[in-house]
Amino acid sequence: MSNCVFCALIAEDEAVWVAKRADAVAFAPLSQDAIAAGHTLVVPRRHCDGVLTAEDLDLTATSVLVREVALAMLERLGATGVCVLNASGANSGRSVEHLHWHVVPRYEGDGEECLPWPGGRSLHQVNGDPHQLIAAQLSK
Amino acid sequence: MSNCVFCALIAEDEAVWVAKRADAVAFAPLSQDAIAAGHTLVVPRRHCDGVLTAEDLDLTATSVLVREVALAMLERLGATGVCVLNASGANSGRSVEHLHWHVVPRYEGDGEECLPWPGGRSLHQVNGDPHQLIAAQLSK
Repeated sequence: MSNCVFCALIAEDEAVWVAKRADAVAFAPLSQDAIAAGHTLVVPRRHCDGVLTAEDLDLTATSVLVREVALAMLERLGATGVCVLNASGANSGRSVEHLHWHVVPRYEGDGEECLPWPGGRSLHQVNGDPHQLIAAQLSK
Repeated sequence: MSNCVFCALIAEDEAVWVAKRADAVAFAPLSQDAIAAGHTLVVPRRHCDGVLTAEDLDLTATSVLVREVALAMLERLGATGVCVLNASGANSGRSVEHLHWHVVPRYEGDGEECLPWPGGRSLHQVNGDPHQLIAAQLSK
């Protein structure tokens, strides 16, 4: 898509590449955005905004590459685990509107402050039982 | 797997179900663990520890159900976006060792404190360029 920085980066082959696959690629984020050594982004080659609009192929190709990258972090970086994050749509904190999974290696000694788990809770109230509402939509 | 709380929950059909599919299910977390109204967990029916050990089918089935759940959050709950999180392996903060994706609806008015983005950075140093090391592993 024009004006998409990740599409441009793929088209122009301008990134610190970690892996290139048929339908997905992995690369380093800007260094000031990395929250751990080896933090990597996994994105589909084909443009889509995020998980909300991703086609099955994009989800499959990226999630398989997420696993590959995660395993390599254990093999080569000495990581003990990973956190995987995606933000899609408004108010999610997503910076670039091209589906991307953050794969963040976790190391022994990493503290709570490194974990992607917000201390705050949303104060938003839903009119009705939210899980029943989602279930109703999914059983249509 | 014996001793896995999510396997038990699936086997005993004991959850606040949001969706049941052939290879994956979605359900509500314990209410004290929900960080937003409608927060939902998506897991494969078949046991695997996390993304590090997931088979392709588990990744595909769960990521497609994550999308379905996310779309239903926009349709039915008035969410504007979602955050999707997984923690796998040691030091990742994962509570249950059965692959699970947190799908957290994001609403207008949710503040920074609700976002799964840690303020802290890992202080762990890797011996060498971490992205080159991952790339080397993936090109083997």
